[in-house]
Amino acid sequence: MIRRIAAEFLGSALLAALVIGSGIAAQRLSPTDTGLQLLENAFATALGLPVIILVFVAVSGAHVNPVVSLVDAALGGRRWRDVAAYVPAQVAGCIGGAVLANTMFGLPALALSATERMDPPRFLAEIIATAGLVLVVFVLARTGRGAVVPWAVGAYIGAAYFFTSSSSFANPAITIGRMFSDTFAGIAPASAPGFVLAQLIGGAVGVLAILWFAPAPTARGEAVDGS
Amino acid sequence: MIRRIAAEFLGSALLAALVIGSGIAAQRLSPTDTGLQLLENAFATALGLPVIILVFVAVSGAHVNPVVSLVDAALGGRRWRDVAAYVPAQVAGCIGGAVLANTMFGLPALALSATERMDPPRFLAEIIATAGLVLVVFVLARTGRGAVVPWAVGAYIGAAYFFTSSSSFANPAITIGRMFSDTFAGIAPASAPGFVLAQLIGGAVGVLAILWFAPAPTARGEAVDGS
Amino acid sequence: MIRRIAAEFLGSALLAALVIGSGIAAQRLSPTDTGLQLLENAFATALGLPVIILVFVAVSGAHVNPVVSLVDAALGGRRWRDVAAYVPAQVAGCIGGAVLANTMFGLPALALSATERMDPPRFLAEIIATAGLVLVVFVLARTGRGAVVPWAVGAYIGAAYFFTSSSSFANPAITIGRMFSDTFAGIAPASAPGFVLAQLIGGAVGVLAILWFAPAPTARGEAVDGS
Amino acid sequence: MIRRIAAEFLGSALLAALVIGSGIAAQRLSPTDTGLQLLENAFATALGLPVIILVFVAVSGAHVNPVVSLVDAALGGRRWRDVAAYVPAQVAGCIGGAVLANTMFGLPALALSATERMDPPRFLAEIIATAGLVLVVFVLARTGRGAVVPWAVGAYIGAAYFFTSSSSFANPAITIGRMFSDTFAGIAPASAPGFVLAQLIGGAVGVLAILWFAPAPTARGEAVDGS
Repeated sequence: MIRRIAAEFLGSALLAALVIGSGIAAQRLSPTDTGLQLLENAFATALGLPVIILVFVAVSGAHVNPVVSLVDAALGGRRWRDVAAYVPAQVAGCIGGAVLANTMFGLPALALSATERMDPPRFLAEIIATAGLVLVVFVLARTGRGAVVPWAVGAYIGAAYFFTSSSSFANPAITIGRMFSDTFAGIAPASAPGFVLAQLIGGAVGVLAILWFAPAPTARGEAVDGS
Repeated sequence: MIRRIAAEFLGSALLAALVIGSGIAAQRLSPTDTGLQLLENAFATALGLPVIILVFVAVSGAHVNPVVSLVDAALGGRRWRDVAAYVPAQVAGCIGGAVLANTMFGLPALALSATERMDPPRFLAEIIATAGLVLVVFVLARTGRGAVVPWAVGAYIGAAYFFTSSSSFANPAITIGRMFSDTFAGIAPASAPGFVLAQLIGGAVGVLAILWFAPAPTARGEAVDGS
Repeated sequence: MIRRIAAEFLGSALLAALVIGSGIAAQRLSPTDTGLQLLENAFATALGLPVIILVFVAVSGAHVNPVVSLVDAALGGRRWRDVAAYVPAQVAGCIGGAVLANTMFGLPALALSATERMDPPRFLAEIIATAGLVLVVFVLARTGRGAVVPWAVGAYIGAAYFFTSSSSFANPAITIGRMFSDTFAGIAPASAPGFVLAQLIGGAVGVLAILWFAPAPTARGEAVDGS
Repeated sequence: MIRRIAAEFLGSALLAALVIGSGIAAQRLSPTDTGLQLLENAFATALGLPVIILVFVAVSGAHVNPVVSLVDAALGGRRWRDVAAYVPAQVAGCIGGAVLANTMFGLPALALSATERMDPPRFLAEIIATAGLVLVVFVLARTGRGAVVPWAVGAYIGAAYFFTSSSSFANPAITIGRMFSDTFAGIAPASAPGFVLAQLIGGAVGVLAILWFAPAPTARGEAVDGS
């Protein structure tokens, strides 16, 4: 169990360092175009996230996201006490990753973000972003296609950085971690609770969609509805 | 059947939200370079479209495109009454996705696009774009390589955003959906019928090419012509 | 045989339309930064080229490149009379693709390029680019990893657009086709013979490297040198 | 053995030509935005590096990196005398690749870089970058997923160009090679020893992480900790 918790901690730390670090680089190096900054941030995330999942998936499942752990338990794939152990590791990891990113770029180790992000459109966007994320993970896992999950998750998040107005945090742990870097990927503490609430709602919406579209585990490629 | 129709509806809605939403983000964040906007739009689409297909393929085939459904039926792979059920779901889904994208970005839920796109070069481009799309889908499916279709379709559309002058709609349902967002990815209602006509012609051209290059289903990698 | 020749013709036409068309779009839409133009061109090519290979590989091998056909014959994988049939189809296809790209973008169907590209550094670059291309194709094919060739070739060419000073034509047929579009991807007729010569030298260099590193076909992943 | 040394030499030369050459192109073609230059450099590297690994992996293992060879030996996967043969080939190859890139772009064959890169944040960044690299390579290799290593390494390095402040050299041989090109990817000789030291520390950190998360080779997908 300690190894799995360590995997969730380190995976989450690397995720936060990836997202925040590439945001700092993008902001510094491309100062005149926010879209180009987001493209650089999304490029790095879409490439790096699958690698993090590949490395830790055989250890802990590589959730690196409390909503994924909660949905896994809700669907019967993991014990609730595992979730209770995973979530603190994920949150601590993301804070640690923020410290690492700040330090790698010569910034103060911890700084609260001043970037206000909460408004109704982005609340909706986080619901959609998170529902889509868990739909991708669990429909593929439940239909015998777990090997493609790392790449699908990276592709999904890379796309969601652009197609959602919130740039798709979709993860309460990374939301908390991103509070601690006053840079491109940061989020002001006042905006974080709304994001987390939207993500939890999105997770619940995602569970309903999963149960509808992949009601039970099936073999690879098998249709779930022969009617 | 209801689950399959729901899959086509939701998949189409997510496709429209992906294409239109990432277009809005690109337009807002990269205001000075249209090519960069299209690159961001294409990046998001090339990554997000394979994920949509992966999620819904085992439920409904993940056509999310009336031309794909029509070609599937024309090639004997699906009943015509399935097409009659799929197409309205695809169109309704794409309109719903336009509403979702507009709302996520704080715009009026529905607004008619003022972007005129129709002219002879782009009519030709939509024929080519759509013929190429169905050629990719059905040649791979008929030669035992269905597992690569999601990624191939995403790659094809990402490329076609640039190599066709029409930026490759290649889908009557998304063409209708894109009428309802007056943003980067929008199309004026007056231009839509020409695009749809070109797409239907492209589908027919594609069927001829499929029958020529993959006349019958074969095993993976087997040459179709041993002469 | 007619089907295979048709596959080489159509595949080459789509390749030229892809390379030239995305170049025209990039040049028009991103007028202020040549690197961004090349990134858009490379993005489209890296995504589109694997799809062209996937579609036609089971028909003709999807060479769409005279050097690939020549090397295949030199290595004993194909008859020389096949090469004699493939090469004209590849050249005609690439010219046809140039016409298609020009027409899709509302330009005169044929126009000679005025872009001079030949100098000693780029002569060297084309040798390297072409040697690398055939090394990738045939080392993978000879070691039981043919399924990865489409993606590897797309990735290689996408990279080579940037790491070679010639932007890696690496293909005599596309070199000839690109003479006929006076746009971003064009090449002045006076520069073409030097490029073709360099590509043929590169093919020969590649054969030597293939014979050294993959002297005989082996099973997947098997080391070629156990010493 | 000579073939394996030749593979390490040529693979390293192509790696250096890839990294340095695409940096020169980016710098020349996108003169106004450093982030865009790095995006072009990262795009080319993320696509090209997997291809280099795919080509040479069956010959020599395609380390093209002294830290990878050292870690392989430390984990018992390779004899130390192999490392003694590989490392000089890797260093010589990277210098040769710098010469090739300089020459392809019409620059003097050898020029010392004036780009100072060493400071404490980037020292930390190189430790993280290198530890992450060997973690990716060896966790995947030790859990039966070697086939995904080429793509995972390319994705990792593409991401690390952005998420680390050092732009992730993560390789002593390429660090030495990059001393010899006074262009975008160059590093001043005075900065190189610090980078190499950080990379060696990173390798050692990586070994500890590998032994913790993948203590022994397992079959594909098998959990390493069932507790």
